[in-house]
Amino acid sequence: MRRNPLGQRIDFGTQPSRYRHWRIVFDGPVATLFMDVDENGGLFDGYQLKLNSYDLGVDIELADAVQRLRFEHPEVGAVVLRSGKERVFCAGANIRMLGAAEHTHKVNFCKFTNETRNTFEAAGAESGQSYLCAIKGTCAGGGYELALACDHILLADDGSSAVALPEAPLLAVLPGTGGLTRLTDKRKVRRDLADVFSTIEEGVKGRRAAEWRLVDEVVPNKAFEETVAARAREFAARVGDKTGGRGIELTPIDRTFAADGGVTYSLVEVAVDRAKGLATITLHGPDADAPASLEALHTEGARTWALRLARELDDAILHLRFNELELGVICFKSQGDAVKALAHENFLVEHRVQDWLSREILLYWKRVLKRVDLTSRSLVAFVETGSCFAGLLAEIAFACDRSYMMNGAFEGDNRAPAAITLAESNFGVAPMSNGLTRLQTRFLGEPEAVEAARAEIGKPLEAEAASRLGLVTFAFDDIDWEDEVRIFLEERASFSPDAMTGMEANLRFAGPETMETRIFGRLTAWQNWIFGRPNAVGEKGALKRYGTGQRGEFDRRRV
Amino acid sequence: MRRNPLGQRIDFGTQPSRYRHWRIVFDGPVATLFMDVDENGGLFDGYQLKLNSYDLGVDIELADAVQRLRFEHPEVGAVVLRSGKERVFCAGANIRMLGAAEHTHKVNFCKFTNETRNTFEAAGAESGQSYLCAIKGTCAGGGYELALACDHILLADDGSSAVALPEAPLLAVLPGTGGLTRLTDKRKVRRDLADVFSTIEEGVKGRRAAEWRLVDEVVPNKAFEETVAARAREFAARVGDKTGGRGIELTPIDRTFAADGGVTYSLVEVAVDRAKGLATITLHGPDADAPASLEALHTEGARTWALRLARELDDAILHLRFNELELGVICFKSQGDAVKALAHENFLVEHRVQDWLSREILLYWKRVLKRVDLTSRSLVAFVETGSCFAGLLAEIAFACDRSYMMNGAFEGDNRAPAAITLAESNFGVAPMSNGLTRLQTRFLGEPEAVEAARAEIGKPLEAEAASRLGLVTFAFDDIDWEDEVRIFLEERASFSPDAMTGMEANLRFAGPETMETRIFGRLTAWQNWIFGRPNAVGEKGALKRYGTGQRGEFDRRRV
Repeated sequence: MRRNPLGQRIDFGTQPSRYRHWRIVFDGPVATLFMDVDENGGLFDGYQLKLNSYDLGVDIELADAVQRLRFEHPEVGAVVLRSGKERVFCAGANIRMLGAAEHTHKVNFCKFTNETRNTFEAAGAESGQSYLCAIKGTCAGGGYELALACDHILLADDGSSAVALPEAPLLAVLPGTGGLTRLTDKRKVRRDLADVFSTIEEGVKGRRAAEWRLVDEVVPNKAFEETVAARAREFAARVGDKTGGRGIELTPIDRTFAADGGVTYSLVEVAVDRAKGLATITLHGPDADAPASLEALHTEGARTWALRLARELDDAILHLRFNELELGVICFKSQGDAVKALAHENFLVEHRVQDWLSREILLYWKRVLKRVDLTSRSLVAFVETGSCFAGLLAEIAFACDRSYMMNGAFEGDNRAPAAITLAESNFGVAPMSNGLTRLQTRFLGEPEAVEAARAEIGKPLEAEAASRLGLVTFAFDDIDWEDEVRIFLEERASFSPDAMTGMEANLRFAGPETMETRIFGRLTAWQNWIFGRPNAVGEKGALKRYGTGQRGEFDRRRV
Repeated sequence: MRRNPLGQRIDFGTQPSRYRHWRIVFDGPVATLFMDVDENGGLFDGYQLKLNSYDLGVDIELADAVQRLRFEHPEVGAVVLRSGKERVFCAGANIRMLGAAEHTHKVNFCKFTNETRNTFEAAGAESGQSYLCAIKGTCAGGGYELALACDHILLADDGSSAVALPEAPLLAVLPGTGGLTRLTDKRKVRRDLADVFSTIEEGVKGRRAAEWRLVDEVVPNKAFEETVAARAREFAARVGDKTGGRGIELTPIDRTFAADGGVTYSLVEVAVDRAKGLATITLHGPDADAPASLEALHTEGARTWALRLARELDDAILHLRFNELELGVICFKSQGDAVKALAHENFLVEHRVQDWLSREILLYWKRVLKRVDLTSRSLVAFVETGSCFAGLLAEIAFACDRSYMMNGAFEGDNRAPAAITLAESNFGVAPMSNGLTRLQTRFLGEPEAVEAARAEIGKPLEAEAASRLGLVTFAFDDIDWEDEVRIFLEERASFSPDAMTGMEANLRFAGPETMETRIFGRLTAWQNWIFGRPNAVGEKGALKRYGTGQRGEFDRRRV
């Protein structure tokens, strides 16, 4: 696939005034999100986004819209997703884009779109902002997967509107954004019917779609608008009057790129060492004190430390995922005042029940931390002198594959000794995709260790205590630190990136499975496998041949 | 990889007198299983099985030994797995074999070895036949995964004995027989320590191996024999006196191959249609009545209908998996007297608490049905006139991706109308890998449908009733049957085998996850992906280069 027309890096920052593919209409507690893809607005050259099909650029706007609904429109209780075009709801991910894209881009694309679909469900469950999908016209593949991520699906009974997952029969790949998993796990479609449905190119329409549990209701065409509106009002009413909340504006994120590709944000720095295949993300603690009141927090808005840091970290992770494929190790560092950082965070934790903004900032941290968990790079935390791995920042260390901590004084370094400080937020505020906290997952074999850690809330735990409590992998003193870190980084960089991706994906999510872990762990792995097989992407593969009038030719051996 | 020296199909039938790689010593309730691989006894040309490394041939013997322990030695309460060689326990799967093997063989090999490892755990949990692993010497990769499948691991503390998972650093692949999953889920090793452990080529020994939960006990060298013996006696004693049970002999399975590759067993027929990519397995009901007494059952032994059918079906499935890669659809049919079949089965169900053989036959059915669930071919049941899909045979239909049933009379066919008969065995005797029955999995969205089905136990359910209860996907009458079946088979054969494999793997196991489903669903998918990537299997990949003195050269882009 060619670079995008401007030859630029992929940028995840956007805002409604710049949307090319979506528009939002607000009507009190109901927002309607129209998908109306500009077919000439593809992110890369070489394809047109016909029939409301999408590429990463379309999804970046969608992710932005979903995020802004949480922060800028807390009054909204129901979001209706619909098409801005006649006769087609959405044809799914653009197939020519997929056919031309590199394996890495396909996989990254699917992961990002999956994360966005998950935020639909999170918005309903966590913030009373439910998603409804109102389908008229063809709704196929990724289009139906958009619907599956909604809390309620209405399908017009007009003789032609249908839902379909035609990927396997048509393209020799799987539905890539959770379709199969949501069929069986969320909608609990009978498995043999799911098998039939997933092999019918033209999909299922009318009464059968409801009987098979593929949609929640099938609505006669003439009653469609009225029913959609009524259902949206019902969902919005479930959470009561939200009109008291006034949103805050998510102002643009400032960032500057250095010549070597390093990035500087206001609170986050990304340093790049290409020879070592290493990106170092340093997170900075707050300069200012915690907001003095809820009023002060709302006045600070997007400038408040905890939200600013989360947005910048999120952007940095996405940038590394898509634009820096050869940096296989991400190293997390922090610098700053842990006491102040915890004051900011604890203010949010204390007010999260009464104040929507405090709650939304914490819920956003939950999403960002999940994004870290799901980033397929080797993740390591270096807990150094002067660092502030406290509370949610400590969660980043727990999200890492391993962690190294400085032990004691380091010559010529007058910063405070390295310490980790636990807080209430480490015990349930930001659970992983598996539903457990990172400490619960870490101590699956010794649940009592979680309680031992909880008893230390608020205390700066230096290397010895942190090691004893099992919070870090290794602690080294001034004599060994540099060598040990160097050896680890050299060794990690020497391993096969694929083996590390597979190993980390298997080790990070012990314990219970959820729909999310199944989508990212199982479905994604199968999809990646299929994406690499000649039957899909070879010269005679179905994905390559799509649109040529020729069907794929397959190696018939079963694996 | 070249064919094996004789150019023959892979045969899963063997017996202790023919073992080349294992020997068993019995001492009352304790059996010791020595792994002593004949390095010149590889199944294929081109590699030597050095350092107690294994290939499929070694594992076929192991699977046979584990199976015979259940049926021929019910008196055994503890099985000690150890090496017959000095200084090495087991070096894992043979790397030259893996490097030379085709993708399909590697995947099939891993699946079969995984199934065998699972039977270790099943033997302990279900039959009080626990596995202990006594490690002296190097225990690496698949060797340590053998240990992980045991209920208790003892490691000699002799300064050199160590456990290791060196696959990722050394070979750029994952441990392929459940290693990563058992580390986190079974042994609950802390995830950062698991990460460290899985990247240390030389492994971990001594006290640290126990501290990291990698083994259960580390035993000083001089106390090793004594401790192993004591621990084996303890495990055996947990299940009380088993000496009352006298085993039955698992006599060789008779089968005949036709020129076209079809196979005839005493109760199972496999018909092959290469043009359609189709294998049809027909299962025959019993001629004889159910055993009149437990004594009669034990006298019949391996000849009794239910055990003979299970063994023949198991062999047929394995034959198709390994030797018939291009038959992408397996169609199950049955013929016979459902009442008689249920009489046999119900006899076993009634006696399963008091009689070990009744219990073992049913537990074997559980394993065979899981083998069907895990077979990566499209599975379809044709419930035809004269068929006997009753009880456990009906489970086969429920294991299929979809089922077609004949509705009513068929011209010129005087056999009994097609019917499904449910029995007690459909409601808990043979749960799937996810811990649910096939009907519970099927009706995840309508649990009341399971109860509705239970109310019909014992009644022959013809097409209308079976459809109403949701037990079959489609029912067609004489007019439509032939066309519908033909269209389905043609369509299925036209799809990409890889897409079907991925789709079926995702749709078959809805609901809860277990260690088994994670091994087969998640770990296997990642492993398959890695097995297809140039970083492992390309000319410069680590697996290809192993033993050449050169390390793999990697595409460093992360996916």
